[in-house]
Amino acid sequence: MSSTTHQQQPSVEARERLLGAALVLFTQQGYAATSVREICLKAGVTKPVLYYYFKSKEGLYLQLMEDSHSRFEAMLADLGSIGGSIRQRVIRFCESVFDTTVQQLPLVQLIYSIYYGTPQGAPPFDLEQYYDRMLLVISTLIQEGIDAGEIREGNVNDMVWASLACMSIAIEEQLCHCNPRLDRSAMTRMLHIVFDGLAVR
Amino acid sequence: MSSTTHQQQPSVEARERLLGAALVLFTQQGYAATSVREICLKAGVTKPVLYYYFKSKEGLYLQLMEDSHSRFEAMLADLGSIGGSIRQRVIRFCESVFDTTVQQLPLVQLIYSIYYGTPQGAPPFDLEQYYDRMLLVISTLIQEGIDAGEIREGNVNDMVWASLACMSIAIEEQLCHCNPRLDRSAMTRMLHIVFDGLAVR
Repeated sequence: MSSTTHQQQPSVEARERLLGAALVLFTQQGYAATSVREICLKAGVTKPVLYYYFKSKEGLYLQLMEDSHSRFEAMLADLGSIGGSIRQRVIRFCESVFDTTVQQLPLVQLIYSIYYGTPQGAPPFDLEQYYDRMLLVISTLIQEGIDAGEIREGNVNDMVWASLACMSIAIEEQLCHCNPRLDRSAMTRMLHIVFDGLAVR
Repeated sequence: MSSTTHQQQPSVEARERLLGAALVLFTQQGYAATSVREICLKAGVTKPVLYYYFKSKEGLYLQLMEDSHSRFEAMLADLGSIGGSIRQRVIRFCESVFDTTVQQLPLVQLIYSIYYGTPQGAPPFDLEQYYDRMLLVISTLIQEGIDAGEIREGNVNDMVWASLACMSIAIEEQLCHCNPRLDRSAMTRMLHIVFDGLAVR
């Protein structure tokens, strides 16, 4: 792969290959340790094409993050019209987030490695907005459930976090284990437990 | 700090300073990027003292991990004689794990950065054993609760994970946020929700 043999034209395919190559390299060897040269080599694309689409390694990284965030928002928009009981809607929401996560596992692994890992100089991207958004969606549902008499009175925030906790631990099990100890259906059963309670009444 | 000015004697204090310096450097700049020279410089200790106690950077890292694991096992041993209802014992267990975590936050941050971060060549240490151990403790308690009629019949595994999820998300909030959105008392209230359930019956 030489950048001097012929002039490459930018193309949608080249752009996608660059995003894919960067994701693999950032996840496997870290953001800091990955060079523009390596990304281009892996993508089979010349440097000018990378600069044309993303301006820099930073730009490529931010595009990955923004694409992921757009997919997340699109999933939320799809959920807007879901009906059913509040329990069904909370569970359906968590299942959708779980599915979206599993569909883009390397990207979510990259997000976790940036969030929990040693600082690597990646440009800032607000990763908290995912949680803030999910907290807001579940919070609205729970409040609706209280108003409708489906959910008992109580601290809405605690209820939201208890639900989110089950989703979060199920997702985290998918990230680092060859054999996750929890799957989607286990998460759903855990959410039913949060609604029904463990204690004999 | 020069290693040639005088011959240093190994001492318990020097050993502790090495562990402290390594923990800070591993957490802040990563395991791979930290050299024996930097650790010694930060600890104010000569290289032979490091080699005397730990043999290598790998040995120092493993000692940090083993010390942390010993503290975890000591905490579990302290909990062995706790009485009360199963609900009280599960909550007390989660509160103890939470407290032990907060007392050694930089170490737990290092564990998370190794677990979720880009591979850095740190020697293998079984981080799964923490979860496996906690799953076993809570599982035993829940089964006891079912046998005693305090907990309803059901999938013990799901019940254990729903409890552990609340503890886990509360701990994770302490790791990366200047202002965690959850504290110890929020975790306790979330665990009560898991026992009581959200739904009006």
